[in-house]
Amino acid sequence: MSTPISTISVRPEAQGFKPYSPGLSINEIKQRYGLAQVIKLASNENPLGVSPVVRKVLESKAALAFRYPQCGYPRLRQAMAEALGVDVARIVAGNGSDEIIDLLVRVLCRPGQDHVLAARPCFSVYGSQALICGVEFRQVDLNPDYSLPLTRLAEMADERTALVFVTSPDNPTGVAAKTDDLEALARALPKRTLLAVDEAYIHFVDDEQRASLLPRLASLPNVALLRTFSKAYGLAGLRLGLGVLPPELADIMLRVQIPFSVNLLAEEAGIAALSDHIFYEETLRVTREGRAYLMSELAALSCAPQPSQSNFIMFTPPQEAKAVFEGLLRRGIIVRPLASYGLADKIRVSVGRMDENQAFVSALREVLGA
Amino acid sequence: MSTPISTISVRPEAQGFKPYSPGLSINEIKQRYGLAQVIKLASNENPLGVSPVVRKVLESKAALAFRYPQCGYPRLRQAMAEALGVDVARIVAGNGSDEIIDLLVRVLCRPGQDHVLAARPCFSVYGSQALICGVEFRQVDLNPDYSLPLTRLAEMADERTALVFVTSPDNPTGVAAKTDDLEALARALPKRTLLAVDEAYIHFVDDEQRASLLPRLASLPNVALLRTFSKAYGLAGLRLGLGVLPPELADIMLRVQIPFSVNLLAEEAGIAALSDHIFYEETLRVTREGRAYLMSELAALSCAPQPSQSNFIMFTPPQEAKAVFEGLLRRGIIVRPLASYGLADKIRVSVGRMDENQAFVSALREVLGA
Repeated sequence: MSTPISTISVRPEAQGFKPYSPGLSINEIKQRYGLAQVIKLASNENPLGVSPVVRKVLESKAALAFRYPQCGYPRLRQAMAEALGVDVARIVAGNGSDEIIDLLVRVLCRPGQDHVLAARPCFSVYGSQALICGVEFRQVDLNPDYSLPLTRLAEMADERTALVFVTSPDNPTGVAAKTDDLEALARALPKRTLLAVDEAYIHFVDDEQRASLLPRLASLPNVALLRTFSKAYGLAGLRLGLGVLPPELADIMLRVQIPFSVNLLAEEAGIAALSDHIFYEETLRVTREGRAYLMSELAALSCAPQPSQSNFIMFTPPQEAKAVFEGLLRRGIIVRPLASYGLADKIRVSVGRMDENQAFVSALREVLGA
Repeated sequence: MSTPISTISVRPEAQGFKPYSPGLSINEIKQRYGLAQVIKLASNENPLGVSPVVRKVLESKAALAFRYPQCGYPRLRQAMAEALGVDVARIVAGNGSDEIIDLLVRVLCRPGQDHVLAARPCFSVYGSQALICGVEFRQVDLNPDYSLPLTRLAEMADERTALVFVTSPDNPTGVAAKTDDLEALARALPKRTLLAVDEAYIHFVDDEQRASLLPRLASLPNVALLRTFSKAYGLAGLRLGLGVLPPELADIMLRVQIPFSVNLLAEEAGIAALSDHIFYEETLRVTREGRAYLMSELAALSCAPQPSQSNFIMFTPPQEAKAVFEGLLRRGIIVRPLASYGLADKIRVSVGRMDENQAFVSALREVLGA
């Protein structure tokens, strides 16, 4: 049965979506609390902003914004393939990796028959796209130590499992899976099942055993990798994601994808970002240095930080997390409370520039009265 | 039954998509034919390029590309609502109007039960999104004079018709429907059926009787309007579309939409474009002047141009259309052959700047040996 909306009928699946709850912008926080400066450490954005090389390209290509992008963005796909050292036939770009997640569900899952598997908590888009596609979404709790429940995922999978999503390093925990364990999961899954490893944060890993599955793809025919330009490449606002897929699947995804879904400036910026190794390396250096600093300070403030392989840290303040979040907000620091992930006692802070990290620690010390 | 692709299973609907066939870019045409200059009149882009106001905004906002857009883009929706004089609760922005078309199908149509109705030929995205959603796509031929088959669409609609798409002015014909006839169609449809009028080219209409349904929306609860920033606003490369929907439907669309699908520079450029009335008016002036010129020259060359209310003209050359298209290409003019629309004897030319229109006419005269 569909539910009438004024006179029009809406699918029941669409009714199930929660109302959109807007976060406050930097400007709104400034106005609300009368602050001159606000530091946002809430969305795991790049601490260094936009690469100067990318910025120059964006400025020089602005006059081209009246042209449609080239259909299938062949230059971008080629640049991505070269940067990753894989066949271009494996590469799909998307309007953020969100679009690639959506396409995977649409292309692989038969509504009402197949299901999608993921951890709980996980990135909300895995579940929302399953829901709107009429595809069941099954979840397995993270292990008690916040490691990914890879063995349980393998046990839960059956012939109706079209797709398994794993984020590694995971969000919001920062915990990365061992590549050997991911490979074991891929091999344990039914042959029809795709394992999509979301490597949005893979750039920040410093544990060799928890690195990318990329070098093993040739021997894993049922694995796809997702990457994003929103984090290490500093392009969150332009929306650019990347999938490395089995070639036959990439071919179908490119046919099914809405034409021109990757915008022209994202294409140009993405190509430029892949060429700017200095900015990329500096991003990693600043992130690792800031992460070590925050780990040490959070531990000193009895905040039980979870060791992270990513560009953010999950921690458990010794006082109510909601109150700590609001105390930080009043002091001009935006972080991410994790109640929406089912982790109401925890907060996630993105690694910023060192001056931002210090301002956060100083504000947190005040809030905690430490 | 799903079909195996390597080891992975793919939905049969996804298998039905045609391979992506890339058009040649301006640079490829230059290389292939050794040309210094190539004129593209194939995609109905803005003849004046990017508004200087927009260009300045893009340059100044390039440094913000590392930030996520504000979820739900409230500033953009507000600017759109003010520009159109409608309640902001009606407004949805999309990654091109393509995304809004996709969301309409996903939100309104029950796969395997409902269907979508449109004219034949029509914009390909209506049919492709129905196909990937597992929703039947039914078409009614245009009338012999290329006017929209509104009466037949009303006759074909039944309780399983979730959605009717009408493009007015239509593409590729340039023919616009009378507002009275569109209203009659809306009123004749079952109460559950949404009439989506794609007004991508409405800005270029100069017949008052064939203008927008916008002023009548309050009395038409089952009508949605689609607009785009790709044509009159010169932002095809940034991907920005706009839907004016029944408020309850807009609310659901905003919940279902992938977060951040409109990129940050599209948001900023869209707001700026709505404020640049000089550029907009000049676009309309140049387009109407060029359209009148092309109509007259095409008629003089026995090309039977179809009178157009849009920024392009469909015509029937007195020689094989494919050969004429290729003859123009060799002379550095890219137009659009209409075989993919089922109109193999016809060509569509976008209205360009006057120097571009003249170059097109001159090349066409050569090709036709006239």
